[in-house]
Amino acid sequence: MRLEILPVTGIGDVSPGADLAALISEAAPWLRDGDVLVVTSKIVSKAEGQLVDIPVDGPARQAARDEILAAETARAVAQRGQTRIVQTHHGFVMASAGIDASNVDRSQVVLLPKDPDASARSLRAALRERYGIDVAIIVSDTMGRPWRNGLTDVALGAAGIDPIRDHRGETDPYGNELHITQMAVVDELAAAGELVKGKVGQVPVAVVRGYLERPGDDGPGAVALVRDAAADLFSLGTAEARAAGLREAATLAPGDSDGDPEAVARAIATVAAVVAPGTVFTHVPGEGVHATPPGEAPEALIRFGEDIQRLRAALAAEDGPVRIVLTHP
Amino acid sequence: MRLEILPVTGIGDVSPGADLAALISEAAPWLRDGDVLVVTSKIVSKAEGQLVDIPVDGPARQAARDEILAAETARAVAQRGQTRIVQTHHGFVMASAGIDASNVDRSQVVLLPKDPDASARSLRAALRERYGIDVAIIVSDTMGRPWRNGLTDVALGAAGIDPIRDHRGETDPYGNELHITQMAVVDELAAAGELVKGKVGQVPVAVVRGYLERPGDDGPGAVALVRDAAADLFSLGTAEARAAGLREAATLAPGDSDGDPEAVARAIATVAAVVAPGTVFTHVPGEGVHATPPGEAPEALIRFGEDIQRLRAALAAEDGPVRIVLTHP
Repeated sequence: MRLEILPVTGIGDVSPGADLAALISEAAPWLRDGDVLVVTSKIVSKAEGQLVDIPVDGPARQAARDEILAAETARAVAQRGQTRIVQTHHGFVMASAGIDASNVDRSQVVLLPKDPDASARSLRAALRERYGIDVAIIVSDTMGRPWRNGLTDVALGAAGIDPIRDHRGETDPYGNELHITQMAVVDELAAAGELVKGKVGQVPVAVVRGYLERPGDDGPGAVALVRDAAADLFSLGTAEARAAGLREAATLAPGDSDGDPEAVARAIATVAAVVAPGTVFTHVPGEGVHATPPGEAPEALIRFGEDIQRLRAALAAEDGPVRIVLTHP
Repeated sequence: MRLEILPVTGIGDVSPGADLAALISEAAPWLRDGDVLVVTSKIVSKAEGQLVDIPVDGPARQAARDEILAAETARAVAQRGQTRIVQTHHGFVMASAGIDASNVDRSQVVLLPKDPDASARSLRAALRERYGIDVAIIVSDTMGRPWRNGLTDVALGAAGIDPIRDHRGETDPYGNELHITQMAVVDELAAAGELVKGKVGQVPVAVVRGYLERPGDDGPGAVALVRDAAADLFSLGTAEARAAGLREAATLAPGDSDGDPEAVARAIATVAAVVAPGTVFTHVPGEGVHATPPGEAPEALIRFGEDIQRLRAALAAEDGPVRIVLTHP
């Protein structure tokens, strides 16, 4: 197996209503069945008219961008300074919802394609039906990622290729079963395409030749790579999740059952250093945590209440609410 | 520009002490100056003897794995069920610290190379000095990522290639300045290499030809892609960050200054629905939040203390600690 990655040059500027199949097949008459076309989402968006007018400068420009971002956002994920990372209605987690002001006139911004998998299927069908070539299509865009500097291109849409190469259930030569081996090949193909598109500049399409023997059905599309927020260990930014924990602490109510003794012991240890002298929390398994106020003075009782709420927060951090039984000295 | 991606076949099993430069140059006598070699980290680890013996089964196997994981871990990042995502001493955030039990005898596991950039430099130097070819080296491994299903290969080590292609400061044809355009090209090259290595199987090296005209200095290495946890918006898993917020709430102490009025108003609104009837929090700018207990009975005073601590948590979620001034009815 050997791959070639070829740039498609000469496509030029793409306007709303442009016929991408015609532009691509004219620019690359050398396309062959089985080629994988990595198409920058921006030209798909432009052809589909996914452009919004905005003021060219001033506070009105920022206000318009904020409004567009809100409309493209399904869920805020993380924010720091000017950077806003959101989940789009497609499910992609991207800075600024993928809204892009580069490679477009300053009076407009480019939104992501409405349905990049549908865009990929439609371009594929047009190339097959009108130009007689059966290729796979990947609609790609640039994304940041946690933990690593620099951006890479990934697939927003796909047609004619399985987005995942799955080795689960296979065994290696030593007889070990392979567990975590679902490779996101359409993302790797998008990245490979970027190597030629990005280095040369103004090359919106790359062709990966040799990966597919022949394209199959359109397949599930790149939407198969979108992980549901509920299944994701990083569905919120660290600061946002910390704030969510604090807000949860702000509304914690008394618990009504007992908890795991080890978790309760950890919670008591967490608050031990900060509770008022004389306040002792004792876990009585089956009942909950016994708490005795250190005195009868109003200040002591108020402080005792603070300490009880502190303990509730510590318990919530460990295992969930636990009954706190007030006892008298 | 056109790229070729070629598999290097016939390397076979790699044992501790193996001479990778010799193995690769024998298997690929067709290598040329400027080729980028994407080398699976596992064969680098094996050659470097980064193998640890573990029991072949039973609870002792799991205990040994836990111990090895702890030793490879600089910082826990997220955990769910059996999945443990940690930051390694290198700075990589990976499931199980990259420890791998596949493609190795069941009595051993493979650790990551100790210093993958050094491994890349050393392999590059050996190929140049002993075989007269000047290539760039990428040491690659497979990583998961938040938000997207499936894994991709990325660069753990690099020599002879700039890890980042930087377009900052350039302008597009419309005159817009390009802002976020640092592309992690060594990760994209690692992904491109995986397309041929992974599909065929038992191919630990791929060659990307045509990307570099000629390799330069060794360069900063793939460590340049490691983002410092302090700079990362996702340095902890969502559940772990939420728990951190709750633990913080458990130890919140009185504040000693006033806060931003809008933030304080949001905090008061957060707790308004859960505070005891009769407890009112009033922000007096310049002083802090005034709080009056709803009565003199011990139960009311304890409950009042709980509500004060609730408010503290809500304030911490917004803007930080604020002075709470106890007033008398």
